[in-house]
Amino acid sequence: MAVGLHPPARLLPVKGVRLSACAAGIRYTGRDDLVLMEMRPGTQVAAVFTQNRFRAAPVQVAESHLGQAQPRYFLINAGNANAGTGDPGLAHARRTCALIAERAGCAAEQVLPFSTGVIGEPLPVARFEAAADDLVLGLDEGRWLDAARAIMTTDTVPKAISSAIETADGVVTLTGMAKGAGMIRPDMATLLAFVATDAAIPAEDLRWALDQAVAGSFNAITVDGDTSTNDACVLLATAASGVSIDRQSSHWQAFSTELSRLMQWLAQAIVRDAEGATKFVTVRVEGAASVQEARQVAYTVAHSPLVKTAFFASDPNWGRILAAIGRAPVEDLDVGRVALWLESGPGEGGVRVVREAGLDPAYREADGAAIMARPEFTVRIDLGRGAASATIWTSDLSHEYVRINAEYRT
Amino acid sequence: MAVGLHPPARLLPVKGVRLSACAAGIRYTGRDDLVLMEMRPGTQVAAVFTQNRFRAAPVQVAESHLGQAQPRYFLINAGNANAGTGDPGLAHARRTCALIAERAGCAAEQVLPFSTGVIGEPLPVARFEAAADDLVLGLDEGRWLDAARAIMTTDTVPKAISSAIETADGVVTLTGMAKGAGMIRPDMATLLAFVATDAAIPAEDLRWALDQAVAGSFNAITVDGDTSTNDACVLLATAASGVSIDRQSSHWQAFSTELSRLMQWLAQAIVRDAEGATKFVTVRVEGAASVQEARQVAYTVAHSPLVKTAFFASDPNWGRILAAIGRAPVEDLDVGRVALWLESGPGEGGVRVVREAGLDPAYREADGAAIMARPEFTVRIDLGRGAASATIWTSDLSHEYVRINAEYRT
Repeated sequence: MAVGLHPPARLLPVKGVRLSACAAGIRYTGRDDLVLMEMRPGTQVAAVFTQNRFRAAPVQVAESHLGQAQPRYFLINAGNANAGTGDPGLAHARRTCALIAERAGCAAEQVLPFSTGVIGEPLPVARFEAAADDLVLGLDEGRWLDAARAIMTTDTVPKAISSAIETADGVVTLTGMAKGAGMIRPDMATLLAFVATDAAIPAEDLRWALDQAVAGSFNAITVDGDTSTNDACVLLATAASGVSIDRQSSHWQAFSTELSRLMQWLAQAIVRDAEGATKFVTVRVEGAASVQEARQVAYTVAHSPLVKTAFFASDPNWGRILAAIGRAPVEDLDVGRVALWLESGPGEGGVRVVREAGLDPAYREADGAAIMARPEFTVRIDLGRGAASATIWTSDLSHEYVRINAEYRT
Repeated sequence: MAVGLHPPARLLPVKGVRLSACAAGIRYTGRDDLVLMEMRPGTQVAAVFTQNRFRAAPVQVAESHLGQAQPRYFLINAGNANAGTGDPGLAHARRTCALIAERAGCAAEQVLPFSTGVIGEPLPVARFEAAADDLVLGLDEGRWLDAARAIMTTDTVPKAISSAIETADGVVTLTGMAKGAGMIRPDMATLLAFVATDAAIPAEDLRWALDQAVAGSFNAITVDGDTSTNDACVLLATAASGVSIDRQSSHWQAFSTELSRLMQWLAQAIVRDAEGATKFVTVRVEGAASVQEARQVAYTVAHSPLVKTAFFASDPNWGRILAAIGRAPVEDLDVGRVALWLESGPGEGGVRVVREAGLDPAYREADGAAIMARPEFTVRIDLGRGAASATIWTSDLSHEYVRINAEYRT
């Protein structure tokens, strides 16, 4: 049950981008599981890939192809991660690119492969081959929702969003989709995100915009702390709107703000649909000596199994949160300066639970419990050390999380 | 359900140590929850305390008292951690020491307090006061098992063990007890361990022996990665056997080996009785560039919620283990050199699952599944980087873990 997340009502086509989806039978039956995304010649592409040392074959091939040619196609499958598959896995990933290139009339290096699904099983290349003609023939500007559905694994809701920016030069459209319900899945390798715009953006500025937006979105969420072998986030700009945007232009601020908002929505959608999630929790750490320190404290709290089970139980168990703060890697933390609030939302009303390392005398447990009973709330921590802060988003640890992850393959 | 752990059959008294236990009603009814442990004058005491920055009041007072006087009494309660209680908590801890000192005729600084239980509730000092006379009058050499039972919180099995070493100068006895079922408990603050010997050991050597033994026992286990605010491990030597042992003596090797074995047994007992545990898993990392690196990889694997749920499901999900290794903080890891085995026990027969970052062609999933279906097994990892290694012990993540931690306070 996703927390406050619904299927997209309306997705805007992005000029210069066409998509298709089909049921290739890679792992699933009775649903689409293979997507082809085409972008017009001249499209700029920026991408970030997993930091895990075990990088799946498609990640290695996609990064290599991106360095060799201007991409024209993304080939995305669900159900098989093509990870932990060694040299045969690399050959399979390259072969699937060639299948599309032959039919589309481009170089194989202009096709980037993306895979998500079970680790360690050989990619069924024959099924890609059987589907290749349909994929190329089925390309259409209006198929974003079909594509968002086809890349789902244990996601329960397709995750996609659109936005339009009015500029003096015309309208710029942004549409993005993502999949994932944890840093890594039940045998699954996880997070994929694709965001397209029809603005014309120079490569360097596109990369800058992506890095900025990722820092405040996909790099600020955690479900279980497990980084996938297949994570990738891609931003592309087709220029088809005729509107040029760069970091010197007056539109830049509006564009980068909207991009960040859209990517934050997609990242939060992944947490809302996290495996077994019943709560969507914002962890905000303020008063830190550095942003890095604030993030480390926030992640230590968000990864604690005891804090996460307390979230699940709507139990304002502040002792567990203090214990997590106390083991975070912060040198010379003065626990007497630490304060803790539970709030209905970021910046919304709430209650101070802890001040000076002990319970606030004015705090009543019923007030804390009322906030934690909500499907969404914020844990705000002040370290009393400086002016830096960080915000991350996470989910709870429920019975359902254990069931999904223990029983998925069985 | 503890994994392969049974109540102690026979505990040896340690000359110079007397214990008592009583039902003070601190949190529980119908069971003992308060322990007094007396050691004869001249007893040497060494102790290690939690590294959490939020240190409970009894930890602060115990460490302070230990620096001021030679301890004669440990006062240990279950049910209330006296943590997150600020200055009143410190005053309460000191007051309980004074209650014993008044009746036993020693200085308050010779009494060390230890607490385990719910965080953030005031210590009910009046209940200590009501029980103090009985505690002092009830002291007896033969009450180790009563004490081990009285310090339990959500432990399901009392954890205690004895050992005797024959030396040319006479017999030396070691008896120890511990409690804990996770680094921190459902509202609970956790691990306490007390080990006594009747050997005569100089303070410096006692400390050395403790540090050595802790490194391979309590500092080599993890249930959920959450470090408690109240952890303490204490080693005491009464000298009552008349046998002197120091690092120059011929008995040292036998003594320190036996101490390490006994503390390792206690530490493993905590993992075997971990919250919701159905599996006892040894994680051994070899071929590391340093011991620290080996430990970091082992802990990353042991803390991964996805690896732990795979343990619970007896699912030889090697992709999750590789993904955890791949996100461990190891610089320049050459994934092509990583190998992974599943073994019935440390050094016992097993199967190689991964070699050169991919599946071993000879591996059959049924073989891996058969090993993981056992209540105890070993995950052995070779990083192919050097000669350092580390071993840690952990448990699985079960439905029961979530139930215990979500429902404990409700």
